[in-house]
Amino acid sequence: MSSPNREMNRTAYAERLDVFQTSLWLEVDAMVDRHPDMIFFGNGGPAKSLMPADRLAEATATVWSEGLDMLTYGETEGYAPLRRLIVEQMAKVNAPAVAEEILVINGSQEGMDIIGRALIDPGDVVLVDAPTFPDAVRIYESHGATVLGMPMDDEGVIVDDVRAMLDRLPAKPKFIYTIPTFQNPTGVTMSLARRQALVDLARERDILIVEDDPYSAFRYEGETLPSLRALDPATVYLGTFSKTLSPGLRVGWISAPEPLYRQLFGLKEVMHIGNNRIATRLVYHAANGFIDGHVAWAREQYRARRDTLVAALEQYMPAGTKWLVPQGGFFLWVELPERYNTDDLLAAAADNGVIFLPGSWFYPGRTKHNAFRLSFSSLDPDLMAEGVRRIRLAIDQAG
Amino acid sequence: MSSPNREMNRTAYAERLDVFQTSLWLEVDAMVDRHPDMIFFGNGGPAKSLMPADRLAEATATVWSEGLDMLTYGETEGYAPLRRLIVEQMAKVNAPAVAEEILVINGSQEGMDIIGRALIDPGDVVLVDAPTFPDAVRIYESHGATVLGMPMDDEGVIVDDVRAMLDRLPAKPKFIYTIPTFQNPTGVTMSLARRQALVDLARERDILIVEDDPYSAFRYEGETLPSLRALDPATVYLGTFSKTLSPGLRVGWISAPEPLYRQLFGLKEVMHIGNNRIATRLVYHAANGFIDGHVAWAREQYRARRDTLVAALEQYMPAGTKWLVPQGGFFLWVELPERYNTDDLLAAAADNGVIFLPGSWFYPGRTKHNAFRLSFSSLDPDLMAEGVRRIRLAIDQAG
Repeated sequence: MSSPNREMNRTAYAERLDVFQTSLWLEVDAMVDRHPDMIFFGNGGPAKSLMPADRLAEATATVWSEGLDMLTYGETEGYAPLRRLIVEQMAKVNAPAVAEEILVINGSQEGMDIIGRALIDPGDVVLVDAPTFPDAVRIYESHGATVLGMPMDDEGVIVDDVRAMLDRLPAKPKFIYTIPTFQNPTGVTMSLARRQALVDLARERDILIVEDDPYSAFRYEGETLPSLRALDPATVYLGTFSKTLSPGLRVGWISAPEPLYRQLFGLKEVMHIGNNRIATRLVYHAANGFIDGHVAWAREQYRARRDTLVAALEQYMPAGTKWLVPQGGFFLWVELPERYNTDDLLAAAADNGVIFLPGSWFYPGRTKHNAFRLSFSSLDPDLMAEGVRRIRLAIDQAG
Repeated sequence: MSSPNREMNRTAYAERLDVFQTSLWLEVDAMVDRHPDMIFFGNGGPAKSLMPADRLAEATATVWSEGLDMLTYGETEGYAPLRRLIVEQMAKVNAPAVAEEILVINGSQEGMDIIGRALIDPGDVVLVDAPTFPDAVRIYESHGATVLGMPMDDEGVIVDDVRAMLDRLPAKPKFIYTIPTFQNPTGVTMSLARRQALVDLARERDILIVEDDPYSAFRYEGETLPSLRALDPATVYLGTFSKTLSPGLRVGWISAPEPLYRQLFGLKEVMHIGNNRIATRLVYHAANGFIDGHVAWAREQYRARRDTLVAALEQYMPAGTKWLVPQGGFFLWVELPERYNTDDLLAAAADNGVIFLPGSWFYPGRTKHNAFRLSFSSLDPDLMAEGVRRIRLAIDQAG
């Protein structure tokens, strides 16, 4: 395979690929070897020890006992009993839905991609939380969108600022993508007043909202708030089993009102026909009659991890550092005094044996530089204090 | 959920969605209920009875005995032992590859999508076999391509005609997508001379070739020919386990030379992180030490089905009908005299209790109207003669 033909330049990439030039994950992966016992605060998945492995294995056996229909082509929309179970799960986090409008997908990230592909024409504007999940920004940009960040505070997106943005924009945005509950990366939960205001604004201006809701099952304090979907049934909703069961299964869902549902279905059919049909049955059998109890148990473990991390921050972070104790979810967002640049700090931290994700990664345009994200969901809690101590060391080295 | 809000028109679809207006599969699905014992020649998957269900179930159990690494995020490129096994399988159909350039995907259809997305800018031309797999055309068009058909005869793509097309085009095509072996829908296998000529032409004009090769393991007569990849290592190659094991698993692969491999990897990572990790392990354990024997057995069954179908055609088709007996694969292409229109004939056939896929579906622009495709892979062979008799009935009714 070392023929000179291999050197030919037959491939001109599509312009849309420009947005993938930097893989954030490869940047971090390249740092992991810098220290013999690296402490990694970057993984936003559930801890392996908190996944229900035995239950998943049993469910797999059940799948095979049910016949072989799953081995053929078909079922773009997903396994029917799973679609009904998803509707029940959504009801528990105050998100009404109907099974006929649930599209099962390969993790909720695929949902961002399918929605972006269905809706974005080059030049369209998409609004996202600032900061937000960075892959969402890359996905929307790859479909030709200009992605603009909506300012946030501790109550979530600042709706008055969004209104002012809309007034300044030459055309209305194609949609608003937001993570209102235990947000990634900030851990912020949008207040009820802000939720209502955002929904009212979107209705007034006739703008679609896409609500990404991967974490809402993991609430450690306070009352469950209405989802944006509950406040406005036109909202598109993204959910996932990646946090409650396992991300390796790649099973999530979109709940989208007709006629959008039909368009997303058609797109998924052409993209790859449908999900792995064993996986969708496996998730159904694992979740059915089990998932609520499992989540209640895991929730207590995650709450304890959050508390351990907060205690470590209180012990080690320098004066002037701020963080919000999240009411749920997997993330804690730390803001250092303005003079710090956490992009630079990351390199020093990795040399000291700890990795966080720098705040700039979460802003469209990488504009803010004094914050970082810590995941507390998957890291061994016994390593948290030492990890935070190492971050402090890097901060002190930076002066 | 019947709120008036649901009626709001917040969604303007992307222009690229226009190409999905007609789902061919929904058209056919709508016809299945027309007859109480419909005979369906449309399914291009393997017969359920020819899938190795017991072996797949055993392999699933093996996956769970190996630990829980598969439950986390990761492995965009696919399970490492499976990537090595794929290279061995490709060698058996004369398609050289290296494991480091194998990207495991959700069925080879996803490969068409990822390649199209990586390479096509709006306005680019893509050349395909005419006729070809219709979803490929829709995928490339959805990425903005103008898809043009390359004329074929019983030796495959007519390379002199392709050269003339290239001379007439204002810019060179972004790539050539072709199914050289046991082609879908015609069953034609491109001759060695034509393969060499196409590869030479592509090299001379610096055009990338994408070789789609789902059927080559199922050769019933004749010698295995070199793949296009074997003749030109710059060729991108698509493969799948959908025909040899089961389509419900959604496991296929792209073999693409660097640096294109790296671009496709990045795209898949952002689209949905990676495949279901149980499925990729399951396929590995099922295939390892088993797949060649299974394919050899299934090949004999498919050969017998082909022969049954050919005998039925000889018995029932009217004078002036032509078909090519394919040397392998799952499809047989029937050409009626020019005066027939198989789009119209399909409706009459469905009323008589038989469904074929009309030839126009397989042409970009749906230009040719006197042919149809019969799949012989999944239909019960005991129904084939009756199915062909019913088609004849419809032909006679059409006059």
